[in-house]
Amino acid sequence: MSNRWSTGRIESFSDGVFAIALTLLVFDLAVPASSFDDLWRGIAHEWPSYLAYLTSFITIGGLWMAHLGIFRRLQFANPTIMRLNLLVLMGVAFLPFPTGLMAKAIRDTNAERAAVVFYGLTLLVISILLRVLWDAIAHHPELLNQSVSTREIRPIRRASLPNIGFYAAAIALALAVPQAAVFGYLAIAVAAVWRARGDRSPQPARAEAA
Amino acid sequence: MSNRWSTGRIESFSDGVFAIALTLLVFDLAVPASSFDDLWRGIAHEWPSYLAYLTSFITIGGLWMAHLGIFRRLQFANPTIMRLNLLVLMGVAFLPFPTGLMAKAIRDTNAERAAVVFYGLTLLVISILLRVLWDAIAHHPELLNQSVSTREIRPIRRASLPNIGFYAAAIALALAVPQAAVFGYLAIAVAAVWRARGDRSPQPARAEAA
Amino acid sequence: MSNRWSTGRIESFSDGVFAIALTLLVFDLAVPASSFDDLWRGIAHEWPSYLAYLTSFITIGGLWMAHLGIFRRLQFANPTIMRLNLLVLMGVAFLPFPTGLMAKAIRDTNAERAAVVFYGLTLLVISILLRVLWDAIAHHPELLNQSVSTREIRPIRRASLPNIGFYAAAIALALAVPQAAVFGYLAIAVAAVWRARGDRSPQPARAEAA
Amino acid sequence: MSNRWSTGRIESFSDGVFAIALTLLVFDLAVPASSFDDLWRGIAHEWPSYLAYLTSFITIGGLWMAHLGIFRRLQFANPTIMRLNLLVLMGVAFLPFPTGLMAKAIRDTNAERAAVVFYGLTLLVISILLRVLWDAIAHHPELLNQSVSTREIRPIRRASLPNIGFYAAAIALALAVPQAAVFGYLAIAVAAVWRARGDRSPQPARAEAA
Repeated sequence: MSNRWSTGRIESFSDGVFAIALTLLVFDLAVPASSFDDLWRGIAHEWPSYLAYLTSFITIGGLWMAHLGIFRRLQFANPTIMRLNLLVLMGVAFLPFPTGLMAKAIRDTNAERAAVVFYGLTLLVISILLRVLWDAIAHHPELLNQSVSTREIRPIRRASLPNIGFYAAAIALALAVPQAAVFGYLAIAVAAVWRARGDRSPQPARAEAA
Repeated sequence: MSNRWSTGRIESFSDGVFAIALTLLVFDLAVPASSFDDLWRGIAHEWPSYLAYLTSFITIGGLWMAHLGIFRRLQFANPTIMRLNLLVLMGVAFLPFPTGLMAKAIRDTNAERAAVVFYGLTLLVISILLRVLWDAIAHHPELLNQSVSTREIRPIRRASLPNIGFYAAAIALALAVPQAAVFGYLAIAVAAVWRARGDRSPQPARAEAA
Repeated sequence: MSNRWSTGRIESFSDGVFAIALTLLVFDLAVPASSFDDLWRGIAHEWPSYLAYLTSFITIGGLWMAHLGIFRRLQFANPTIMRLNLLVLMGVAFLPFPTGLMAKAIRDTNAERAAVVFYGLTLLVISILLRVLWDAIAHHPELLNQSVSTREIRPIRRASLPNIGFYAAAIALALAVPQAAVFGYLAIAVAAVWRARGDRSPQPARAEAA
Repeated sequence: MSNRWSTGRIESFSDGVFAIALTLLVFDLAVPASSFDDLWRGIAHEWPSYLAYLTSFITIGGLWMAHLGIFRRLQFANPTIMRLNLLVLMGVAFLPFPTGLMAKAIRDTNAERAAVVFYGLTLLVISILLRVLWDAIAHHPELLNQSVSTREIRPIRRASLPNIGFYAAAIALALAVPQAAVFGYLAIAVAAVWRARGDRSPQPARAEAA
């Protein structure tokens, strides 16, 4: 007997969580009133906040695009997918916390390493959850849109593996050179947005330069 | 004479409130700058915040799934349903307040009991409101989607009763052992997500292991 | 030449603003750590915050229902409607500010009157904007859904008038007895939710007790 | 081979970011408790906050209308459009930061100029991004809705140019007279909302006075 949800409200609810998590990041940006005597210097001095903001914004953007890629192919969600999706959203909604921590801890030699590793661990967990979500879908081809073939799913699952490895590597780097690892996280996020692929519908023969 | 609303915008508005309440919970997570000397210890020291965060996140997730289960079966809302839905949303939007209180009060022997009971009372009220919402629907089968039979509604209403009893029991526990009650709330939330059921459409005969 | 927008994204954008304004109200609820010795008393002591929260939550809920009633009947928006809608949303998004002010100022004999009047003025302005929005629609019946008759519009416009008078009266009351006026605002909000009407489609003959 | 996304979830996600950024602006409005002795004066004294609030609210409203105008004409997004849209949203989500800075810095002779210029630079960047987004679309007419002709696109692209010039001029003004430039930003935002145009569908011949 079937036990499943159509994906419409799951998508709108998830879009809400992604959009809010993204927009709340701005609360970690502030210039203390004590820097108002030389505000340009005060603004520039907050560069770790901007770096953390940029990294988390693009990371969540990339996660949203991955989510888009998953649910575009799904017609229905089963309970496993519902629960995994909720866990992914928990990771995304949690991200502003390690982001704020990292922004504050950069330049603090004691705290920097822990904050950057903690941030990377959060992203590693989200990547693993996304991978498990893909696996759950691959075992239930009856949930896919009818236009999606099982053959199409395999390479996408494989494509989600590198992220896990990249984050593991960036965390290892964070143990040695924390600030370099932050740029590593940023590079992984940019690559995720860059590699995201839409439909490969064969209909329009017109060339499309991206 | 009919007086009713189609449910489209009610769902998108409610999804918004659920998604925002869920995402705002992150604001209760913070590590004070005084803990930056040993940040790992500082992060670990905030465990009551994470427990409260986890409990409220999964609770709201479960409430959203219950809401999904209700409105998926509704084609129209009458004024009673509109008002009850607004009250449920008020409870959900209010939840970050007792969550923050509980996170701060755990480990404070004076405040702990009151905070954990107050949190439980909020969830008890929301559970009762959901139950009343189901009752209001059961009295108006003409509001249901045509594919939903009245027979399908009865067991769902019955399934909503235990939560009320569970929360009453957890509150009683909170009076004796507050910290244990928090894990009780978490267990109730996990169970609610676990028991949530999607459509039981008879069409696809394929087995579906959840 | 026509210059108009279909209303789909206007509704989803507006739903977002309503839902967020509603949910952000919770940030004005807090119990200071100094009240943790007797937390129940500390929670009870914050009653002005709860009163302000309740009033603003139901007020925004009622405004959302009025917005629902307006846009359900519209097929298209013209530039005037777009601009007026944006102004209504500005009022709604602004409301957490006077709400927080009122919550803090109740019991402060110097500030109470000004805060309660300021809150009422905000609601008065929103009510007037809604009224002007209805007028703008009434002058452009070609924007209505085809199922909506111009005759249906007139009583709704008339129904929006009392709110303006009620708020004017509550503000006058606030000058004399501020705390009583807060309950007046609450009563107006409850009445707005209570009077909100859905479709009166003649199709289903089944009686529907609300 | 095609690589594209249908625009439904892009629109709902973007609507979320616009609505949240808009609503979060209220957090910059506050009257310190020290002003409660004469609250009306205290409220009036915060005029720079209201000016910044008004300017950013209408600016984001105008950006949302520009976004509406873009995506209403798009049937599909290609990777370039996805990335540019994400950058535009980053600018919008970032805006509360320079808004808060400007609200606090007005009347501080040291910080005022820098804050107002910084605010203007943010808007200049967003305007340029929107312009680049239009260019990306103009090069891919196959992404447009079938009802949209390429001829319709050209004047819209041209219409987006003045904003860039206006912001450049307002920033130049900010270097000389910062407070005047704030009113310049407000005027540009009001003009953007005023000039926004909906569909020019030839169907209804009825005159429509805006």
